[in-house]
Amino acid sequence: MRVVLLSGGGGGARFARGLAGILRPGELTVIGNVGDDVEILGLHVSPDLDSLMYTLGGLIDDVRGWGRADETWSALEAVATWGGEDWFRLGDRDLGLHLVRTAALRDGALLSDLTEELCGRLGLGARLLPATDDRLRTHVVTPAGRFPFQEWFVGRRHRDDVDVVEIDGADRATPARGVVEAIVAADAIVLAPSNPYLSIGPIVAVAGIRRALVERRVRCVAVSPLIGGTAVTGPVDRMLTRMAGGATPAHVAQCHTGLIDALVIDEADAPAEAEVDLVVTRTLMSDRAAERGLAEAVLEAACA
Amino acid sequence: MRVVLLSGGGGGARFARGLAGILRPGELTVIGNVGDDVEILGLHVSPDLDSLMYTLGGLIDDVRGWGRADETWSALEAVATWGGEDWFRLGDRDLGLHLVRTAALRDGALLSDLTEELCGRLGLGARLLPATDDRLRTHVVTPAGRFPFQEWFVGRRHRDDVDVVEIDGADRATPARGVVEAIVAADAIVLAPSNPYLSIGPIVAVAGIRRALVERRVRCVAVSPLIGGTAVTGPVDRMLTRMAGGATPAHVAQCHTGLIDALVIDEADAPAEAEVDLVVTRTLMSDRAAERGLAEAVLEAACA
Repeated sequence: MRVVLLSGGGGGARFARGLAGILRPGELTVIGNVGDDVEILGLHVSPDLDSLMYTLGGLIDDVRGWGRADETWSALEAVATWGGEDWFRLGDRDLGLHLVRTAALRDGALLSDLTEELCGRLGLGARLLPATDDRLRTHVVTPAGRFPFQEWFVGRRHRDDVDVVEIDGADRATPARGVVEAIVAADAIVLAPSNPYLSIGPIVAVAGIRRALVERRVRCVAVSPLIGGTAVTGPVDRMLTRMAGGATPAHVAQCHTGLIDALVIDEADAPAEAEVDLVVTRTLMSDRAAERGLAEAVLEAACA
Repeated sequence: MRVVLLSGGGGGARFARGLAGILRPGELTVIGNVGDDVEILGLHVSPDLDSLMYTLGGLIDDVRGWGRADETWSALEAVATWGGEDWFRLGDRDLGLHLVRTAALRDGALLSDLTEELCGRLGLGARLLPATDDRLRTHVVTPAGRFPFQEWFVGRRHRDDVDVVEIDGADRATPARGVVEAIVAADAIVLAPSNPYLSIGPIVAVAGIRRALVERRVRCVAVSPLIGGTAVTGPVDRMLTRMAGGATPAHVAQCHTGLIDALVIDEADAPAEAEVDLVVTRTLMSDRAAERGLAEAVLEAACA
């Protein structure tokens, strides 16, 4: 069974771990968002790819929800004392990855090839692909101005309401090698419980990926990131309310119009109606068993 | 009293600390070697400037003799697991400096301006100048081949004998702003007990610096890095024996022909004869008091 998952970091990465736990090695391909990518202190950082890799590879700090377990912060402390930019939290272990990747990218490597090599070192059973090797940068337009994603999300702690999300570079970006092929060959396609605007949006903003999804011959199921109309983490509920007019399953489904056949929602959001099939289950991934349980329910919905 | 010191890292940096301890703020200008500079993992590293800055600023690991005290190594461990180059020991705290400096250099800053700013943050009483803002790279020619300095020194643990030291870029390099002015305005000039070929050599390979030293109107005194014909650390004794034909004060003095008026040597190397005045004292910097004692003896010789 070949499953393709479109995902951001955070909850998406945990859901990916749940899927990887019930699929056989080689069956899962994760297409990761790169709209959050950012250059910090000259380093290329891919936060969503990293969260996916760290989570699937058992390196993630599960309590913090991002970055590496047993992390130390000596380098960033030193950066601050020398007057460098320290608003983006880069741990010492995390830096090791950014240093290696940035050096390779400068030498001309593709992000997708690098990601494959790095995942190989972790011995991951799942395949991880960046949506594109081209430069894609999410920006948010807010009443306080237009901000690059990380400046708003981390620097301003996403305090500004968002009116529009713009994906710079999407008009020219082409899917990374293997992305369209994986979608075409999939037996089921899943959109992770990630932010539809900020995590899934930049992936499907790549025309070649959107086209492959629209033309799919298998079911595509999205998992709602809401529980009782509220975000488990992050600003998705506020964004839905402001940008889509509400935070119900119907509003989530509207974000994915034409791309999905069903939406998996939490019991707390049922009963509800939407333009696609709704599948009700418990979506809170409170532990590893819950992650796998949700993954099973989603696969069942995808194969219905 | 204005003193100019030409220095590498290690023993040179400790000697600089001794001088700084007996001079008033603003009296000492250190001109640091940049022939050892190296790009590692895309980062610009200036090992001698860093050793000088860390030593003068109280950040050095005095036991190890390089890098920062209370250092951690998480980033480099991660680099190794991701397959990155880890032969050059970069600690986490140390990385903070390299990240800030590399980002600034990429933005067009000059190494000399950056060094001034960084020293300002440490509140150093001494002024630290790189010999040049131009690219200068020391290479060694050995029976096993020609190597960039750090590949030979760190990567091969300087195991190969050296036949020739070549300073790439010296023919085009100009002194950094303030270097010649400091030499011209000095009341005394000192060459630290650093390796004449590898630490002092690259500085005086810059024609503008050599000219200013040759045309000096004050005394210039070198401190021998040998004690009893042996290096305190590093390969200087082997290099002198092979390249100059011996490791006596006369051979050290020959390395600096035309540049010095006196050579300060250790009691263990006396009596001796050389082409310049010899001043005998105890040169082993076993503690901070010994550093200051040596600095006093050297200043006395420089003002003789």
